[in-house]
Amino acid sequence: MNSAPVKVAIVGASGYSGEELVRLLLNHPHAELTAVTSRQYAGQTVAQIFPKFASHPKSKALRFSEPNSELLATQAQIVFLALPHGVAAEYAIPLLQLGCQVIDLSADFRLRSAEVYKEFYAHDHPAPELLQKAVYGLPEVYREKIKEASLIASPGCYPTSILLPLIPLLKAKLIKPTGIIANSMSGVSGAGRKADVDYLFVECNESVRPYGLPKHRHLSEIEQELGTAAGEPVTMQFTPHLIPVNRGILTTLYAAPTDNFSTADEMTALGERISACYRSAYANEPFVRVLEGKALPDTKNVVGTNVAEIAWRLDPRTGRLIIMSAEDNIVKGASGQAVQSMNILCGFPETAGLL
Amino acid sequence: MNSAPVKVAIVGASGYSGEELVRLLLNHPHAELTAVTSRQYAGQTVAQIFPKFASHPKSKALRFSEPNSELLATQAQIVFLALPHGVAAEYAIPLLQLGCQVIDLSADFRLRSAEVYKEFYAHDHPAPELLQKAVYGLPEVYREKIKEASLIASPGCYPTSILLPLIPLLKAKLIKPTGIIANSMSGVSGAGRKADVDYLFVECNESVRPYGLPKHRHLSEIEQELGTAAGEPVTMQFTPHLIPVNRGILTTLYAAPTDNFSTADEMTALGERISACYRSAYANEPFVRVLEGKALPDTKNVVGTNVAEIAWRLDPRTGRLIIMSAEDNIVKGASGQAVQSMNILCGFPETAGLL
Amino acid sequence: MNSAPVKVAIVGASGYSGEELVRLLLNHPHAELTAVTSRQYAGQTVAQIFPKFASHPKSKALRFSEPNSELLATQAQIVFLALPHGVAAEYAIPLLQLGCQVIDLSADFRLRSAEVYKEFYAHDHPAPELLQKAVYGLPEVYREKIKEASLIASPGCYPTSILLPLIPLLKAKLIKPTGIIANSMSGVSGAGRKADVDYLFVECNESVRPYGLPKHRHLSEIEQELGTAAGEPVTMQFTPHLIPVNRGILTTLYAAPTDNFSTADEMTALGERISACYRSAYANEPFVRVLEGKALPDTKNVVGTNVAEIAWRLDPRTGRLIIMSAEDNIVKGASGQAVQSMNILCGFPETAGLL
Amino acid sequence: MNSAPVKVAIVGASGYSGEELVRLLLNHPHAELTAVTSRQYAGQTVAQIFPKFASHPKSKALRFSEPNSELLATQAQIVFLALPHGVAAEYAIPLLQLGCQVIDLSADFRLRSAEVYKEFYAHDHPAPELLQKAVYGLPEVYREKIKEASLIASPGCYPTSILLPLIPLLKAKLIKPTGIIANSMSGVSGAGRKADVDYLFVECNESVRPYGLPKHRHLSEIEQELGTAAGEPVTMQFTPHLIPVNRGILTTLYAAPTDNFSTADEMTALGERISACYRSAYANEPFVRVLEGKALPDTKNVVGTNVAEIAWRLDPRTGRLIIMSAEDNIVKGASGQAVQSMNILCGFPETAGLL
Repeated sequence: MNSAPVKVAIVGASGYSGEELVRLLLNHPHAELTAVTSRQYAGQTVAQIFPKFASHPKSKALRFSEPNSELLATQAQIVFLALPHGVAAEYAIPLLQLGCQVIDLSADFRLRSAEVYKEFYAHDHPAPELLQKAVYGLPEVYREKIKEASLIASPGCYPTSILLPLIPLLKAKLIKPTGIIANSMSGVSGAGRKADVDYLFVECNESVRPYGLPKHRHLSEIEQELGTAAGEPVTMQFTPHLIPVNRGILTTLYAAPTDNFSTADEMTALGERISACYRSAYANEPFVRVLEGKALPDTKNVVGTNVAEIAWRLDPRTGRLIIMSAEDNIVKGASGQAVQSMNILCGFPETAGLL
Repeated sequence: MNSAPVKVAIVGASGYSGEELVRLLLNHPHAELTAVTSRQYAGQTVAQIFPKFASHPKSKALRFSEPNSELLATQAQIVFLALPHGVAAEYAIPLLQLGCQVIDLSADFRLRSAEVYKEFYAHDHPAPELLQKAVYGLPEVYREKIKEASLIASPGCYPTSILLPLIPLLKAKLIKPTGIIANSMSGVSGAGRKADVDYLFVECNESVRPYGLPKHRHLSEIEQELGTAAGEPVTMQFTPHLIPVNRGILTTLYAAPTDNFSTADEMTALGERISACYRSAYANEPFVRVLEGKALPDTKNVVGTNVAEIAWRLDPRTGRLIIMSAEDNIVKGASGQAVQSMNILCGFPETAGLL
Repeated sequence: MNSAPVKVAIVGASGYSGEELVRLLLNHPHAELTAVTSRQYAGQTVAQIFPKFASHPKSKALRFSEPNSELLATQAQIVFLALPHGVAAEYAIPLLQLGCQVIDLSADFRLRSAEVYKEFYAHDHPAPELLQKAVYGLPEVYREKIKEASLIASPGCYPTSILLPLIPLLKAKLIKPTGIIANSMSGVSGAGRKADVDYLFVECNESVRPYGLPKHRHLSEIEQELGTAAGEPVTMQFTPHLIPVNRGILTTLYAAPTDNFSTADEMTALGERISACYRSAYANEPFVRVLEGKALPDTKNVVGTNVAEIAWRLDPRTGRLIIMSAEDNIVKGASGQAVQSMNILCGFPETAGLL
Repeated sequence: MNSAPVKVAIVGASGYSGEELVRLLLNHPHAELTAVTSRQYAGQTVAQIFPKFASHPKSKALRFSEPNSELLATQAQIVFLALPHGVAAEYAIPLLQLGCQVIDLSADFRLRSAEVYKEFYAHDHPAPELLQKAVYGLPEVYREKIKEASLIASPGCYPTSILLPLIPLLKAKLIKPTGIIANSMSGVSGAGRKADVDYLFVECNESVRPYGLPKHRHLSEIEQELGTAAGEPVTMQFTPHLIPVNRGILTTLYAAPTDNFSTADEMTALGERISACYRSAYANEPFVRVLEGKALPDTKNVVGTNVAEIAWRLDPRTGRLIIMSAEDNIVKGASGQAVQSMNILCGFPETAGLL
């Protein structure tokens, strides 16, 4: 571990993910937050824009600045990008050239294929040559690659809630790669801090609604990573819903086990294989909690933490496995996971600043 | 239509469904609410227990009474039972014998099979001889039978949100009866007005959680009615979730169309058959609204009304049909639907008191 | 009462008050809604913009139009203005000249003094000559004047919650006109349907905050009306707060009774005078409910209704009278009250379309 | 500072304050949580009862036990009591005799007068001899006494939100001790984790209601402490309201400055004295934040923290000072403040475990 703290910066620190990064990095034991940028807030202090951090000793000294890659490269070794897709790449390219390590929270570098990017994001990829260089920042899967990455593409919130439960089962061939369904419910922070009538309090409170189906953009990275785990292409169903909570994603997954379990013995045996698979994958993971007994995930148990909760049930009536996961969309689904990657990259304890 | 109003009573008027029945029946143009019972509130007026109705002229005169079937039979021609399952049957039996017509909002008479009842409700059915006599009170499906019923078993809230979208498609053989999944989200009023830590504000607010899977009791009536529509037994998947809204159910259904739709032409053709099927089923139904264009269901558009909203999307990537429905669990999912049945039974306009 | 329905129009029907007017007038037994205007939605139907009314038979035929006073005057006898202050006057002037009766929900005509208007609204009044013509549309106080008005200035939401509890007591000299404090909490719909980061779900949920103190614009009409009731100028304290509910205002008022009540007998006597005063003022009012016994106001008992709930307590420790009121800010605080005025103006039963 | 961590226990760890104490003490750098008691949960682990702490390494080993003072005295030096009033004293007495230091979160030891206790709590005080021994655990006021206390009575949630803004002004004679009004709004966690229909989600959501006026129990400790600050008895007005948030109290206070401020110069001068008074009191306090400029308190800026936000406005129209404060009722209003006292008592940095 480095003895001096690593200098870090955040580009686009005014949204919900950016704000959470500010919180995590201000309090990180091995990082020093040296710059935060925001066109809108340039010149104002962190204390002014985020009153909830105003009691932090650094919040009155740290001022938002206009984003400037050359300046940032002198201020920080690691730069977090909390920007809209398409915009992030504009900063990643020069920052990498200037020798920074970049942790991008946008979708810009999550796909390995520029074609798939274009299919889902409807414009040419701004820097296709970087796609092979980027590491998908899901620590439970790509920890070793993250250690040596210069460009980390931190996963999306929905993808994290879907990949963590499914990847071990697909790798172990315990479920079929076909016919998977993910039904997700997300809190409103997922829509970002932007002035839009659809996300006004009155429009969201006492409301539940599906949106973005059947081909939400996040499907591209979900299917890419599930395909890698399965060793074959995966096409799946994904339906997001907006629910009136600030934070949290609850995903319910439907999959078909590879083996039949029509008898009680088969069901017991299959259950034990699933348990063993998850134990093997996650027993030592600090941020994945597979529930036992009758417990089921509840977003209120993970909000504010970097933990993903997982539980599962076999249904002998339908022959399906139902898996449920809960996470904080802004922490494990965004900024916490990005800091977890930073910890790995820098050789810090993986839980530093995240407990 | 009768010229004198029909006299009606509510047994168990203190819960959320009972309260909504009070609201609907107090304001019904052709009904006179003559009795409301509640062990807990006996002796107090409707105005005292439900302040929100205190400006209604009858609310100060109408007092809760102890439930007494013989007395009720002298006070009302139609008796609504808003009681827990198992308890409802105790009142239904004598009331029917005394010549009342009974509209039961509990699960006691929804199943045609006493065996299935025992499987799902874990005790013997209290009056199996009445199961064949009862009519399942889903007006869009059983309108003709409701007209002549003496015992109406009003459907559950989740079942209504699942049956209305699926029955026309199954009858028309447009979807396969196998592999259906229903993913539902319900507001907290579905848990009833009972003192239970799990449903405290702090436990539900900022929380989303699945529960009751994989074999929720409502599956029994859902599968019964889907089986009738399909002409063959149906076994399906159902996962309910609790979300922090007072009212509303949003159900997302996944089904496989009978026909392939791998080409654009096939998809267009299938879409037209689905549209035509729903148009045929619901174009003249006052309380089912099939959305067109880009609109998707949102519980806020139906809360407080007896309307169910439905929308659907074909996904050529997965070969699935996704159908979404929204309803108010206490109105179309309970008390409004019960009043709709009453209107049919009495020959009133079906929308009387429900617009 | 007229036998033919009165033709009515709404200018600015796209906000929350406008939407509620659409609901009330579509269902009004003696009104025919012939026109709704909205620059933003011109050309689209009510069913498209407000899905929750899509089951109403008129909602598919009625289209939003561009606002045009000359056309409106041919379409409607009564025109409701649900526009921002300053803009409303632009429509009121020509509509009055063209012979329409105007019910304005904005602040433009609530003050009798153009100077006070300028002091609180920071610009010259656009039509000072109309200020004497306008009637303040608080039916419980100005019923007789409303009957003959051509221009009705419907009260603000906060003012309604403050004036109804205080005016009878001030008129009866039961409380002193000095030192009154109003502490109000409002749901977020009070901020209107406008894209503003401050009113996003995430910014309002799990938040409570004061705003607009110490000189909120509504003070101008509150003090004007309290002054009229007291027969002398009134200056008072008013602090609004934003709380995470869609609808509802709860106001807690602090006032000093004129008489001492340091002994139990004096307190009983004063309590009886207050009760009698409220009984005299409101016993026959359909939309004001003075609570008895231990009951206290709760917005959930009035939301969706045109009712204001009032309760009061004497505190012998401090010598103060505390009065609490609850209303739906969009109904009794805006659109319901405007329709109540229309009923009076047209000679309809005052509760028509409002129960 | 001690080098070995101090051993601490929590009696009554199953409510919201108890749960928050568990969170704070599990993560405290200088404390070791050795016992948690709960009759209801005895035998189960912290991980089972509070899933949100299940990732903490100690949560699976630490089990709830039956409360037993003799055993507790062997397990812990400092015992926190998170029990209902009346019950707390039963444990405090033997624990003190056994040599423990007790930090009581109940109301049992907050009053110096057993008579006032009886007046407000309606029963004889269970241990009047301890009232003089107890120190009121408001660190910003009683820091020196807390250092040497054996029994700390941690303040109530409402009192904290009222005392912090008022005490410096009363001490400095900047406001009059008469005529003070406190209007408070609290989240539902203030009602505790108990099964009660009044606090069900559906009963609280979309509701705002006053309660407990005009003589709420917390008045007793508020008036005691204001009286001490003022140097004369204080009688004041306090109205609590319940609002639909999980956590947070927003209090709006109305007071009369001692000096007139009818001219602009007087107002400026008075404002400077108030600023200076607060600066003197709180500039070095880590957990009190007096806002500057246009900022107003918002509970969302303090929830989850031990910080109280304060802002104030002079109103020249009414001659009043309005002061607003925001806090997390469970942290600064309960468990965080108790830990702050523990830090002082033990000589730890006052912010240890609280940032």
